[in-house]
Amino acid sequence: MPVVYGDILSGNCYKIALLLSQLGIAHEWKEVLVTRGDTRTAEFLAMNPAGQIPVVVLDDGTVLTQSNAILHYFARGSELLPVDPLLHTRVLEWQFFEQYSHEPTIAVRRYIKKFIGLPDDRKEEFNLKEAGSYRALDVMERRLADHQYLVADQYSLADVSLYAYTHVAHEADLDLAGYPGIRRWLKTIASQPGYIGMQPPE
Amino acid sequence: MPVVYGDILSGNCYKIALLLSQLGIAHEWKEVLVTRGDTRTAEFLAMNPAGQIPVVVLDDGTVLTQSNAILHYFARGSELLPVDPLLHTRVLEWQFFEQYSHEPTIAVRRYIKKFIGLPDDRKEEFNLKEAGSYRALDVMERRLADHQYLVADQYSLADVSLYAYTHVAHEADLDLAGYPGIRRWLKTIASQPGYIGMQPPE
Repeated sequence: MPVVYGDILSGNCYKIALLLSQLGIAHEWKEVLVTRGDTRTAEFLAMNPAGQIPVVVLDDGTVLTQSNAILHYFARGSELLPVDPLLHTRVLEWQFFEQYSHEPTIAVRRYIKKFIGLPDDRKEEFNLKEAGSYRALDVMERRLADHQYLVADQYSLADVSLYAYTHVAHEADLDLAGYPGIRRWLKTIASQPGYIGMQPPE
Repeated sequence: MPVVYGDILSGNCYKIALLLSQLGIAHEWKEVLVTRGDTRTAEFLAMNPAGQIPVVVLDDGTVLTQSNAILHYFARGSELLPVDPLLHTRVLEWQFFEQYSHEPTIAVRRYIKKFIGLPDDRKEEFNLKEAGSYRALDVMERRLADHQYLVADQYSLADVSLYAYTHVAHEADLDLAGYPGIRRWLKTIASQPGYIGMQPPE
Protein backbone atom coordinates (compact mmCIF):
# COMPACT_ATOMS: atom_id res chain seq x y z
CA MET A 1 0.00 0.00 0.00
CA PRO A 2 1.12 3.62 -0.50
CA VAL A 3 3.30 5.13 2.20
CA VAL A 4 2.74 8.80 3.04
CA TYR A 5 5.62 10.70 4.64
CA GLY A 6 4.22 13.74 6.36
CA ASP A 7 3.29 15.79 9.40
CA ILE A 8 -0.47 15.77 9.91
CA LEU A 9 -0.30 19.29 11.39
CA SER A 10 1.06 20.57 8.07
CA GLY A 11 -1.85 21.56 5.87
CA ASN A 12 -0.09 20.29 2.76
CA CYS A 13 0.22 16.84 4.36
CA TYR A 14 -3.23 16.91 5.93
CA LYS A 15 -4.75 17.34 2.44
CA ILE A 16 -3.46 13.88 1.57
CA ALA A 17 -4.74 12.31 4.78
CA LEU A 18 -8.16 13.89 4.27
CA LEU A 19 -8.48 12.74 0.66
CA LEU A 20 -7.27 9.19 1.33
CA SER A 21 -9.73 8.91 4.20
CA GLN A 22 -12.59 10.15 2.05
CA LEU A 23 -11.72 7.85 -0.83
CA GLY A 24 -11.15 4.92 1.54
CA ILE A 25 -7.62 4.27 0.24
CA ALA A 26 -5.59 2.19 2.69
CA HIS A 27 -2.13 3.62 3.33
CA GLU A 28 0.69 3.75 5.83
CA TRP A 29 1.52 7.10 7.45
CA LYS A 30 5.11 7.79 8.46
CA GLU A 31 5.58 10.84 10.63
CA VAL A 32 8.15 13.31 9.32
CA LEU A 33 8.59 16.47 11.38
CA VAL A 34 10.19 19.49 9.75
CA THR A 35 10.88 21.08 13.15
CA ARG A 36 12.79 17.96 14.23
CA GLY A 37 14.99 18.13 11.11
CA ASP A 38 13.48 14.98 9.59
CA THR A 39 13.35 16.50 6.09
CA ARG A 40 17.08 17.29 6.16
CA THR A 41 18.39 13.77 6.71
CA ALA A 42 20.33 12.06 3.91
CA GLU A 43 17.69 9.35 3.79
CA PHE A 44 14.83 11.81 3.28
CA LEU A 45 16.73 13.93 0.75
CA ALA A 46 17.52 10.79 -1.26
CA MET A 47 13.76 10.32 -1.55
CA ASN A 48 12.88 14.00 -2.19
CA PRO A 49 15.88 16.24 -2.93
CA ALA A 50 13.66 19.30 -2.47
CA GLY A 51 13.34 18.41 1.22
CA GLN A 52 9.60 19.02 1.30
CA ILE A 53 6.65 17.06 2.66
CA PRO A 54 4.34 15.40 1.83
CA VAL A 55 5.98 12.59 -0.11
CA VAL A 56 4.15 9.45 -1.22
CA VAL A 57 5.93 6.22 -2.13
CA LEU A 58 3.90 3.74 -4.17
CA ASP A 59 4.29 -0.04 -4.02
CA ASP A 60 6.73 -0.09 -6.92
CA GLY A 61 8.94 2.56 -5.31
CA THR A 62 7.61 5.47 -7.39
CA VAL A 63 7.94 8.72 -5.44
CA LEU A 64 5.26 11.42 -5.71
CA THR A 65 5.72 14.99 -4.45
CA GLN A 66 3.77 18.30 -4.41
CA SER A 67 0.58 17.99 -2.37
CA ASN A 68 -1.86 19.08 -5.05
CA ALA A 69 -0.30 16.83 -7.69
CA ILE A 70 -0.59 13.91 -5.26
CA LEU A 71 -4.29 14.71 -4.78
CA HIS A 72 -4.79 14.43 -8.55
CA TYR A 73 -3.00 11.10 -8.66
CA PHE A 74 -5.34 9.52 -6.10
CA ALA A 75 -8.57 11.31 -7.06
CA ARG A 76 -8.54 10.48 -10.77
CA GLY A 77 -11.74 8.70 -11.72
CA SER A 78 -13.53 9.83 -8.55
CA GLU A 79 -16.26 12.44 -8.14
CA LEU A 80 -13.76 14.76 -6.48
CA LEU A 81 -11.99 15.38 -9.79
CA PRO A 82 -14.46 16.46 -12.50
CA VAL A 83 -13.67 15.36 -16.04
CA ASP A 84 -15.70 18.16 -17.63
CA PRO A 85 -12.99 20.40 -19.17
CA LEU A 86 -14.21 23.64 -17.64
CA LEU A 87 -14.85 22.23 -14.16
CA HIS A 88 -11.49 20.44 -14.24
CA THR A 89 -9.86 23.77 -15.11
CA ARG A 90 -11.71 25.47 -12.24
CA VAL A 91 -10.27 22.91 -9.81
CA LEU A 92 -6.77 23.67 -11.11
CA GLU A 93 -7.36 27.44 -10.92
CA TRP A 94 -8.15 27.14 -7.21
CA GLN A 95 -5.21 24.83 -6.56
CA PHE A 96 -2.69 27.10 -8.30
CA PHE A 97 -4.21 30.04 -6.42
CA GLU A 98 -3.71 28.04 -3.24
CA GLN A 99 0.00 27.40 -3.84
CA TYR A 100 0.73 30.90 -5.13
CA SER A 101 -1.38 33.22 -2.97
CA HIS A 102 -2.92 31.31 -0.06
CA GLU A 103 -0.29 28.90 1.28
CA PRO A 104 2.66 31.34 1.09
CA THR A 105 0.74 33.82 3.24
CA ILE A 106 -1.57 31.93 5.62
CA ALA A 107 0.54 28.79 6.04
CA VAL A 108 3.74 30.73 6.56
CA ARG A 109 2.10 33.00 9.16
CA ARG A 110 0.78 29.92 10.93
CA TYR A 111 4.20 28.25 10.85
CA ILE A 112 5.90 31.31 12.32
CA LYS A 113 3.29 31.59 15.08
CA LYS A 114 2.40 28.02 15.96
CA PHE A 115 5.52 26.02 15.20
CA ILE A 116 8.39 28.34 16.03
CA GLY A 117 6.69 30.66 18.52
CA LEU A 118 6.85 34.00 16.68
CA PRO A 119 10.55 34.78 17.25
CA ASP A 120 11.66 38.40 17.00
CA ASP A 121 13.51 37.91 13.73
CA ARG A 122 10.37 36.66 11.98
CA LYS A 123 7.91 39.25 13.36
CA GLU A 124 8.29 41.63 10.42
CA GLU A 125 7.58 38.80 7.95
CA PHE A 126 4.63 37.67 10.09
CA ASN A 127 3.15 41.15 10.00
CA LEU A 128 3.84 41.68 6.29
CA LYS A 129 1.92 38.52 5.46
CA GLU A 130 -1.27 39.67 7.16
CA ALA A 131 -2.51 41.75 4.21
CA GLY A 132 -1.82 38.96 1.70
CA SER A 133 -3.59 36.45 3.92
CA TYR A 134 -6.76 38.53 4.02
CA ARG A 135 -6.54 39.16 0.27
CA ALA A 136 -6.52 35.39 -0.26
CA LEU A 137 -9.50 34.99 2.07
CA ASP A 138 -11.30 37.79 0.21
CA VAL A 139 -10.94 35.83 -3.03
CA MET A 140 -12.48 32.77 -1.39
CA GLU A 141 -15.30 34.78 0.19
CA ARG A 142 -16.29 36.28 -3.16
CA ARG A 143 -17.02 32.74 -4.32
CA LEU A 144 -18.36 31.25 -1.09
CA ALA A 145 -20.68 34.12 -0.14
CA ASP A 146 -23.28 32.60 -2.45
CA HIS A 147 -21.97 29.13 -3.33
CA GLN A 148 -21.77 25.96 -1.29
CA TYR A 149 -18.51 24.75 -2.87
CA LEU A 150 -15.59 26.30 -4.71
CA VAL A 151 -16.34 24.56 -8.02
CA ALA A 152 -19.86 24.03 -9.36
CA ASP A 153 -22.22 22.53 -6.79
CA GLN A 154 -20.02 19.60 -5.92
CA TYR A 155 -17.31 18.78 -3.40
CA SER A 156 -13.98 18.60 -5.25
CA LEU A 157 -10.21 18.65 -4.84
CA ALA A 158 -10.43 22.44 -4.85
CA ASP A 159 -12.24 22.27 -1.51
CA VAL A 160 -9.73 19.75 -0.13
CA SER A 161 -6.78 21.96 -1.11
CA LEU A 162 -8.21 25.21 0.24
CA TYR A 163 -9.73 23.74 3.38
CA ALA A 164 -6.35 22.56 4.68
CA TYR A 165 -4.97 25.90 5.80
CA THR A 166 -8.23 27.88 5.90
CA HIS A 167 -9.71 25.80 8.71
CA VAL A 168 -6.71 26.59 10.91
CA ALA A 169 -6.43 30.25 9.91
CA HIS A 170 -7.02 31.22 13.55
CA GLU A 171 -3.69 29.56 14.37
CA ALA A 172 -2.15 32.17 12.06
CA ASP A 173 -3.89 34.95 14.07
CA LEU A 174 -6.39 35.53 11.29
CA ASP A 175 -10.00 36.36 12.12
CA LEU A 176 -12.76 34.83 9.99
CA ALA A 177 -15.51 36.94 11.60
CA GLY A 178 -15.92 38.96 8.41
CA TYR A 179 -16.12 35.87 6.22
CA PRO A 180 -19.56 34.27 6.71
CA GLY A 181 -19.33 32.38 3.41
CA ILE A 182 -16.03 30.79 4.38
CA ARG A 183 -17.34 29.90 7.85
CA ARG A 184 -20.41 28.19 6.41
CA TRP A 185 -18.22 26.36 3.87
CA LEU A 186 -15.87 25.11 6.62
CA LYS A 187 -18.85 23.42 8.27
CA THR A 188 -19.98 21.93 4.97
CA ILE A 189 -16.55 20.38 4.38
CA ALA A 190 -16.32 19.03 7.93
CA SER A 191 -19.61 17.22 7.38
CA GLN A 192 -18.49 15.31 4.27
CA PRO A 193 -18.43 11.51 4.44
CA GLY A 194 -15.03 10.20 5.52
CA TYR A 195 -13.95 13.56 6.92
CA ILE A 196 -11.08 13.51 9.40
CA GLY A 197 -9.51 16.39 11.29
CA MET A 198 -5.84 17.16 11.78
CA GLN A 199 -5.10 14.10 13.82
CA PRO A 200 -2.71 11.25 13.03
CA PRO A 201 -4.48 8.56 10.91
CA GLU A 202 -4.88 5.23 12.66
CA MET B 1 -12.22 32.74 -30.90
CA PRO B 2 -10.63 32.95 -27.43
CA VAL B 3 -9.31 36.32 -26.33
CA VAL B 4 -6.10 36.37 -24.28
CA TYR B 5 -5.47 39.37 -22.06
CA GLY B 6 -1.78 39.53 -21.30
CA ASP B 7 1.68 41.02 -21.60
CA ILE B 8 3.87 38.87 -23.80
CA LEU B 9 6.94 39.90 -21.76
CA SER B 10 5.36 38.30 -18.68
CA GLY B 11 6.39 34.65 -18.54
CA ASN B 12 2.98 33.63 -17.21
CA CYS B 13 1.33 35.20 -20.28
CA TYR B 14 3.99 34.02 -22.69
CA LYS B 15 3.22 30.41 -21.68
CA ILE B 16 -0.23 30.82 -23.18
CA ALA B 17 1.06 32.41 -26.40
CA LEU B 18 3.63 29.62 -26.80
CA LEU B 19 1.11 26.82 -26.26
CA LEU B 20 -1.56 28.32 -28.53
CA SER B 21 1.04 28.77 -31.27
CA GLN B 22 2.23 25.20 -30.93
CA LEU B 23 -1.29 23.80 -30.94
CA GLY B 24 -2.32 26.08 -33.81
CA ILE B 25 -5.26 27.54 -31.87
CA ALA B 26 -6.43 30.83 -33.37
CA HIS B 27 -6.93 33.56 -30.80
CA GLU B 28 -6.99 37.29 -30.28
CA TRP B 29 -4.31 38.87 -28.09
CA LYS B 30 -5.16 42.00 -26.11
CA GLU B 31 -2.21 43.74 -24.56
CA VAL B 32 -2.55 44.39 -20.83
CA LEU B 33 0.44 46.04 -19.16
CA VAL B 34 0.79 45.76 -15.38
CA THR B 35 3.29 48.63 -15.31
CA ARG B 36 0.76 50.88 -17.08
CA GLY B 37 -1.90 50.06 -14.46
CA ASP B 38 -4.05 48.10 -16.91
CA THR B 39 -4.80 45.37 -14.36
CA ARG B 40 -6.15 47.91 -11.84
CA THR B 41 -8.93 49.36 -13.98
CA ALA B 42 -12.56 48.72 -13.02
CA GLU B 43 -13.07 46.99 -16.36
CA PHE B 44 -10.21 44.55 -15.82
CA LEU B 45 -11.10 43.86 -12.19
CA ALA B 46 -14.68 43.08 -13.22
CA MET B 47 -13.19 40.35 -15.41
CA ASN B 48 -10.60 39.09 -12.90
CA PRO B 49 -11.01 40.45 -9.36
CA ALA B 50 -7.55 39.11 -8.48
CA GLY B 51 -6.06 41.66 -10.90
CA GLN B 52 -3.67 39.18 -12.43
CA ILE B 53 -2.75 38.29 -15.99
CA PRO B 54 -3.10 36.20 -18.08
CA VAL B 55 -6.87 36.03 -18.44
CA VAL B 56 -8.62 34.15 -21.24
CA VAL B 57 -12.20 34.86 -22.30
CA LEU B 58 -13.91 32.12 -24.31
CA ASP B 59 -16.57 32.70 -26.98
CA ASP B 60 -19.39 32.20 -24.49
CA GLY B 61 -17.91 34.74 -22.07
CA THR B 62 -16.36 32.17 -19.72
CA VAL B 63 -13.31 33.65 -17.98
CA LEU B 64 -10.24 31.50 -17.29
CA THR B 65 -7.40 32.54 -14.97
CA GLN B 66 -4.15 31.07 -13.58
CA SER B 67 -1.63 30.43 -16.36
CA ASN B 68 -1.03 26.76 -15.68
CA ALA B 69 -4.74 25.99 -15.39
CA ILE B 70 -5.29 27.73 -18.73
CA LEU B 71 -2.59 25.54 -20.29
CA HIS B 72 -4.48 22.44 -19.14
CA TYR B 73 -7.72 23.75 -20.60
CA PHE B 74 -6.24 24.14 -24.08
CA ALA B 75 -3.86 21.15 -24.06
CA ARG B 76 -6.39 18.49 -23.08
CA GLY B 77 -6.42 15.72 -25.66
CA SER B 78 -3.07 16.79 -27.13
CA GLU B 79 0.33 15.11 -26.81
CA LEU B 80 1.47 17.89 -24.50
CA LEU B 81 -0.77 16.62 -21.70
CA PRO B 82 -0.16 12.91 -21.04
CA VAL B 83 -3.18 10.89 -19.92
CA ASP B 84 -1.08 8.22 -18.25
CA PRO B 85 -1.78 8.77 -14.52
CA LEU B 86 1.85 8.90 -13.43
CA LEU B 87 3.04 11.11 -16.29
CA HIS B 88 0.04 13.41 -15.81
CA THR B 89 0.99 13.69 -12.13
CA ARG B 90 4.61 14.45 -13.08
CA VAL B 91 3.41 17.37 -15.25
CA LEU B 92 1.44 18.72 -12.30
CA GLU B 93 4.39 18.26 -9.92
CA TRP B 94 6.55 20.48 -12.14
CA GLN B 95 3.79 23.07 -12.56
CA PHE B 96 3.11 23.36 -8.83
CA PHE B 97 6.88 23.57 -8.26
CA GLU B 98 6.94 26.35 -10.84
CA GLN B 99 4.26 28.42 -9.12
CA TYR B 100 5.58 27.80 -5.60
CA SER B 101 9.37 27.83 -5.92
CA HIS B 102 10.41 29.04 -9.38
CA GLU B 103 8.13 31.92 -10.35
CA PRO B 104 8.13 33.66 -6.91
CA THR B 105 11.94 33.80 -7.01
CA ILE B 106 13.10 34.08 -10.65
CA ALA B 107 10.12 36.00 -12.04
CA VAL B 108 10.03 38.44 -9.13
CA ARG B 109 13.80 39.14 -9.44
CA ARG B 110 13.32 39.71 -13.16
CA TYR B 111 10.38 42.04 -12.56
CA ILE B 112 12.32 44.11 -10.04
CA LYS B 113 15.33 44.36 -12.39
CA LYS B 114 13.84 44.58 -15.86
CA PHE B 115 10.48 46.24 -15.38
CA ILE B 116 10.97 48.68 -12.50
CA GLY B 117 14.73 49.22 -12.76
CA LEU B 118 15.93 47.81 -9.42
CA PRO B 119 14.82 50.67 -7.16
CA ASP B 120 16.58 51.05 -3.81
CA ASP B 121 13.56 49.93 -1.79
CA ARG B 122 13.44 46.58 -3.62
CA LYS B 123 17.19 45.79 -3.57
CA GLU B 124 17.05 43.77 -0.38
CA GLU B 125 14.22 41.63 -1.77
CA PHE B 126 16.10 41.27 -5.07
CA ASN B 127 19.17 40.01 -3.26
CA LEU B 128 17.24 37.74 -0.92
CA LYS B 129 15.66 35.98 -3.89
CA GLU B 130 18.99 35.01 -5.45
CA ALA B 131 19.48 31.89 -3.33
CA GLY B 132 15.94 30.65 -3.92
CA SER B 133 16.30 31.23 -7.65
CA TYR B 134 19.41 29.06 -7.82
CA ARG B 135 17.76 26.40 -5.65
CA ALA B 136 14.92 26.23 -8.18
CA LEU B 137 17.41 25.98 -11.06
CA ASP B 138 19.25 23.23 -9.14
CA VAL B 139 16.04 21.19 -9.00
CA MET B 140 15.64 21.53 -12.76
CA GLU B 141 19.29 20.68 -13.44
CA ARG B 142 19.06 17.46 -11.44
CA ARG B 143 16.45 16.30 -13.92
CA LEU B 144 17.82 17.85 -17.10
CA ALA B 145 21.46 16.84 -16.62
CA ASP B 146 20.59 13.46 -18.13
CA HIS B 147 17.09 13.88 -19.58
CA GLN B 148 15.93 15.69 -22.69
CA TYR B 149 12.59 16.79 -21.20
CA LEU B 150 11.15 17.34 -17.73
CA VAL B 151 8.63 14.48 -18.00
CA ALA B 152 9.39 11.15 -19.66
CA ASP B 153 10.96 11.52 -23.11
CA GLN B 154 8.29 13.82 -24.47
CA TYR B 155 7.65 17.53 -24.74
CA SER B 156 4.82 18.44 -22.33
CA LEU B 157 3.11 21.28 -20.47
CA ALA B 158 5.79 20.93 -17.80
CA ASP B 159 8.36 22.18 -20.33
CA VAL B 160 6.09 25.02 -21.44
CA SER B 161 5.54 26.16 -17.85
CA LEU B 162 9.18 26.01 -16.78
CA TYR B 163 10.62 27.38 -20.01
CA ALA B 164 8.76 30.68 -19.66
CA TYR B 165 10.90 32.26 -16.95
CA THR B 166 13.96 30.03 -17.25
CA HIS B 167 14.81 31.21 -20.75
CA VAL B 168 14.93 34.80 -19.54
CA ALA B 169 16.75 34.05 -16.27
CA HIS B 170 19.62 36.28 -17.43
CA GLU B 171 17.19 39.22 -17.24
CA ALA B 172 16.96 38.43 -13.52
CA ASP B 173 20.77 38.58 -13.26
CA LEU B 174 21.01 34.82 -12.95
CA ASP B 175 23.89 32.94 -14.59
CA LEU B 176 23.16 29.59 -16.25
CA ALA B 177 26.85 28.80 -16.84
CA GLY B 178 26.77 26.08 -14.21
CA TYR B 179 23.62 24.50 -15.65
CA PRO B 180 24.58 22.64 -18.84
CA GLY B 181 21.48 20.46 -18.73
CA ILE B 182 19.18 23.48 -18.56
CA ARG B 183 21.07 25.21 -21.39
CA ARG B 184 20.75 22.17 -23.64
CA TRP B 185 17.04 21.88 -22.76
CA LEU B 186 16.43 25.55 -23.61
CA LYS B 187 17.71 24.84 -27.15
CA THR B 188 15.54 21.73 -27.39
CA ILE B 189 12.42 23.69 -26.50
CA ALA B 190 13.24 26.55 -28.88
CA SER B 191 13.45 24.00 -31.72
CA GLN B 192 9.94 22.58 -31.18
CA PRO B 193 7.44 22.95 -34.04
CA GLY B 194 5.38 26.09 -33.68
CA TYR B 195 7.80 27.69 -31.23
CA ILE B 196 7.58 31.43 -30.82
CA GLY B 197 9.70 33.74 -28.69
CA MET B 198 8.57 36.54 -26.39
CA GLN B 199 7.17 38.71 -29.14
CA PRO B 200 3.58 39.84 -29.64
CA PRO B 201 1.59 37.22 -31.63
CA GLU B 202 0.51 38.44 -35.09
